[in-house]
Amino acid sequence: MNSQRAVVLLSGGLDSTTVCAVAKSQGRDIYALTLNYSQRHAWELNAAADVAKRFGVKEHVVFPIDLTRFGGSSLTDRTRPVEKDVPLEKIGEAIPSSYVPARNTIFLSLALAFAETRGANEIWIGVNCVDYSGYPDCRPEFIDAFEKLGNIATKAGVQGRGLKIQTPLLNLNKAEIIKLGLSLGVDYSITRSCYDLDALGRSCGQCEACLLRKNGFQEAGVPDPTPYRDPGSEFLF
Amino acid sequence: MNSQRAVVLLSGGLDSTTVCAVAKSQGRDIYALTLNYSQRHAWELNAAADVAKRFGVKEHVVFPIDLTRFGGSSLTDRTRPVEKDVPLEKIGEAIPSSYVPARNTIFLSLALAFAETRGANEIWIGVNCVDYSGYPDCRPEFIDAFEKLGNIATKAGVQGRGLKIQTPLLNLNKAEIIKLGLSLGVDYSITRSCYDLDALGRSCGQCEACLLRKNGFQEAGVPDPTPYRDPGSEFLF
Repeated sequence: MNSQRAVVLLSGGLDSTTVCAVAKSQGRDIYALTLNYSQRHAWELNAAADVAKRFGVKEHVVFPIDLTRFGGSSLTDRTRPVEKDVPLEKIGEAIPSSYVPARNTIFLSLALAFAETRGANEIWIGVNCVDYSGYPDCRPEFIDAFEKLGNIATKAGVQGRGLKIQTPLLNLNKAEIIKLGLSLGVDYSITRSCYDLDALGRSCGQCEACLLRKNGFQEAGVPDPTPYRDPGSEFLF
Repeated sequence: MNSQRAVVLLSGGLDSTTVCAVAKSQGRDIYALTLNYSQRHAWELNAAADVAKRFGVKEHVVFPIDLTRFGGSSLTDRTRPVEKDVPLEKIGEAIPSSYVPARNTIFLSLALAFAETRGANEIWIGVNCVDYSGYPDCRPEFIDAFEKLGNIATKAGVQGRGLKIQTPLLNLNKAEIIKLGLSLGVDYSITRSCYDLDALGRSCGQCEACLLRKNGFQEAGVPDPTPYRDPGSEFLF
């Protein structure tokens, strides 16, 4: 079987790591792309590098993109606080402060450039529309619109090398994603999801990403290997 | 009349400067975005800053984006030569080496983020499909697909603040663009189009961008104010 080249958007979080495992299990040659968009901590980049190494990717590009120039999100504007302890049933009702304007459009655009230069005709991305945070650019209609655009926008598309956006997590909830990853041997202790990691790479346990992740492990009925800090422990450092 | 906020993609070249003039003449408050994608020379950035100043833009963001990480174009990969002296009638027949994979998709994505954070619902871009170089991401179907995507991808779109991509040059040839700009008072001597500027900001006169520009001034029947270097003069420095 010929292996197929695929770009995987890899943040180092739970979802994108699972996507990487699925792509690998389906025999893809992986070109991993990590966008460094001035996140609050470099720990996410460490996690992405660890994951890339474990999955034996062909190439891992860490691409700097300074979205703080635009602001407009608690993830890219340090003067805005990350929301904490939002009740689970409220997550997804409104678009939260962690929404980064046009984030997935920008990320997929860069993945499109990477894919075209490496001769890959697939982009894998860990969006899902079940346990998501209400971001407009995680919906199936967004993915469809981007796939259409990608096929019009590029030399590869014009020359008939069709682009496919692969979203294996689209209809899974967090517990199902975790079970899928564990069945493929993912070690979630090296992944990070928290919007507010401390200097030691420990998760806060209270932001939306932590709440969804914690709940996922609970619902999956498996131990949560995430290193959490004790409430208030950041004051010790 | 209430003025309307608009993001203008401004490279400092002939086309984007004309777009800026049209947006200004239609009463827009301009938020200029210049993408610094490791072009061969910083002169383009100087030209963009000059243009932004002359048009009294509200804000000018110069956004660094290192497309050399992906390569695949003579504009972002210095080991690949820029094509010179291609006969005018051949330009547009094949996609040339100056094609930057997914360039306009990336640029419009960043403009989308800028627009959303500044409350602008228009993005102006100087693509045209007449005197163009055969780039797939300069075609009307590409622009339509991006407009659709932008309205799905963002909080602003979901909340009904429709996004419009404005392409006032889409169906004009270079001579018509020049005449339009001159009628609006554009000083083309401060703009740069060349893919191979020298250290003094002088144009080569032989790359595709220069050939199209030179021909445009000739067809418009107006003097070409572009500073060209003499062939071979770069060896004097």
